[in-house]
Amino acid sequence: MDFLAILKQKSDLVEKELPKFLPPIDSATTPELKEYYEMFWDYPLRGGKRLRPAFCLLSCEMFGGNQQEALPTAVAFDLFQHWVLVHDDIEDGSDLRRGKPCLHKIYGIEKALNAGDGLHVKMWEALLANKAIIGPTKAQKIMQEFGHQLGLTVEGQAIEINWNMGGRWDVTEKEYLNMIEHKTAHYTGSTPLRLGAIVGGAKARELEILRKVGLKAGYAFQIQDDALNLAGDEKAYGKEIGGDIYEGKRTLMMIHLLAHAKKEKARILEIMNKPRSQKTPEEVREVIELMNKYGSVEYAKERARKYAMEAKELFDKKFTHVPGKEARDTISGLVEYFVTREK
Amino acid sequence: MDFLAILKQKSDLVEKELPKFLPPIDSATTPELKEYYEMFWDYPLRGGKRLRPAFCLLSCEMFGGNQQEALPTAVAFDLFQHWVLVHDDIEDGSDLRRGKPCLHKIYGIEKALNAGDGLHVKMWEALLANKAIIGPTKAQKIMQEFGHQLGLTVEGQAIEINWNMGGRWDVTEKEYLNMIEHKTAHYTGSTPLRLGAIVGGAKARELEILRKVGLKAGYAFQIQDDALNLAGDEKAYGKEIGGDIYEGKRTLMMIHLLAHAKKEKARILEIMNKPRSQKTPEEVREVIELMNKYGSVEYAKERARKYAMEAKELFDKKFTHVPGKEARDTISGLVEYFVTREK
Repeated sequence: MDFLAILKQKSDLVEKELPKFLPPIDSATTPELKEYYEMFWDYPLRGGKRLRPAFCLLSCEMFGGNQQEALPTAVAFDLFQHWVLVHDDIEDGSDLRRGKPCLHKIYGIEKALNAGDGLHVKMWEALLANKAIIGPTKAQKIMQEFGHQLGLTVEGQAIEINWNMGGRWDVTEKEYLNMIEHKTAHYTGSTPLRLGAIVGGAKARELEILRKVGLKAGYAFQIQDDALNLAGDEKAYGKEIGGDIYEGKRTLMMIHLLAHAKKEKARILEIMNKPRSQKTPEEVREVIELMNKYGSVEYAKERARKYAMEAKELFDKKFTHVPGKEARDTISGLVEYFVTREK
Repeated sequence: MDFLAILKQKSDLVEKELPKFLPPIDSATTPELKEYYEMFWDYPLRGGKRLRPAFCLLSCEMFGGNQQEALPTAVAFDLFQHWVLVHDDIEDGSDLRRGKPCLHKIYGIEKALNAGDGLHVKMWEALLANKAIIGPTKAQKIMQEFGHQLGLTVEGQAIEINWNMGGRWDVTEKEYLNMIEHKTAHYTGSTPLRLGAIVGGAKARELEILRKVGLKAGYAFQIQDDALNLAGDEKAYGKEIGGDIYEGKRTLMMIHLLAHAKKEKARILEIMNKPRSQKTPEEVREVIELMNKYGSVEYAKERARKYAMEAKELFDKKFTHVPGKEARDTISGLVEYFVTREK
């Protein structure tokens, strides 16, 4: 079976597990709670690839564990993704998420913010379910690392919001990498691989390698994601094309562009400093064309490829000995997929 | 020592413990994180009575436990209060919190929402610290009940926001009590008393009594809080007087008023249905005067008194046998204080 079919299988497994942790809509005791439960289910049922939950399940299997034992942790990664996206969409003023209006665009900021908090609580309840399945020691270890990673993600978001709101355009590549390491790389690569491995019984030095692999894979994922935001197909991608430019994000492409387009720099900043609602599609296209002209998109894609290949090489070299060969090869395939995907 | 002096002592103890769970501002590695850490510390350093943390510490002592063992849980209640207030202030469009502008009024909604998420994570980290102090079984039990209570609080908020945004003014007293039971009564009374008691070694039937005592005390607290919002002294209270009327909250007073002021009902709804920014101070005063005229404030205060007295009577009767007499009497005093306080 190819790795995308396996990814789909894992995603279905996680989706089927969700009713254990999210209340069914018809269990609501008041009309107000019915709407609230509908909000819980909205993002989870929009699909999505569920890469992080899959990493978690596969990593458990790679070390010889039963993926059933990693399922509550995989669900927690899924719920994490949903509450963070709900809150990020508010903070970034986004319009679309997976091809539909963002939750706060449907229900208003007040309700969406609160529903995000509810999903956050459900995420912890999924982690608390671990104790009965894998015992108190592993369960506590997983919650501890999950909590640490959450703290980093929120810090990464704090850094990015600060740049956006403060109008800082002199962000360096090093600062950008530090930001995405906090915001994305831990929770996309390192943490799901490590926590699945803890359930599967991996040793400390194996966990350390997974940290390195996961961070590089996480960099690759985020940089590719930013590139797709500009160049991808709107329908496949599910977000508006150029959304990051509307939102004024400091991406690797933007940092590269500002460093190279000396002549057009003032014009670029003029566009980028406009609030979202005042940027025209023509202006957004103008910035994207400059990114192509100066090779900024190609530069970013090349950096993403490099990180993905480094992650894959280290992974392939260090995990020849594991019992779960198919799971291992799927992880390896997925890391490469991070930079070959079109959505 | 009187119970208010003891309350102050407990509050100081919790505040002194906070640096174990919140990063010091000067530990930030970037200017962006420095601002983010400053936001963490903002609400906690505005003071506040810390009633819930005190309940938790006292309940532990009442059953013969050492309050040091309940300290991480008490800190978790404090952190809980802060992130919930940050998010509630955004959702309610509030202006003032403890006499100063709300966090989102200082830093913007984007940053404040995110900082609230960060505090939420820190709250769980405080609960995770329990294992090393009281062992995995009690620590898990506490996290489980804490998580359950969080879920109820967010549900209560969902119900209230739904009423506010949906323009529903036919809320019944029963619906109101159900809403505040979810939103406030568990986390103000029942849960801190129960979790402190779990640390202190209370038996299941004692925990069950504390649930009943705590819920009634929690009703009393919230109803009194709503009454103070109208009639209190702005300086002592730290929020704007009549803020609930500006925000359009369905309080017990409002429900009573709408049921009794047949003649003025249309006028009241005309005022209440205006958005916050379009209500004049004169209109807010007009509603408050009608609440006084129809005895709505007195009615609510009487209900609060009744719940507090029922809670206190049950508590005093059922806990004659406990080893920690001073802690017990302080809790009893605090329950009464819920309805005698002026701020």
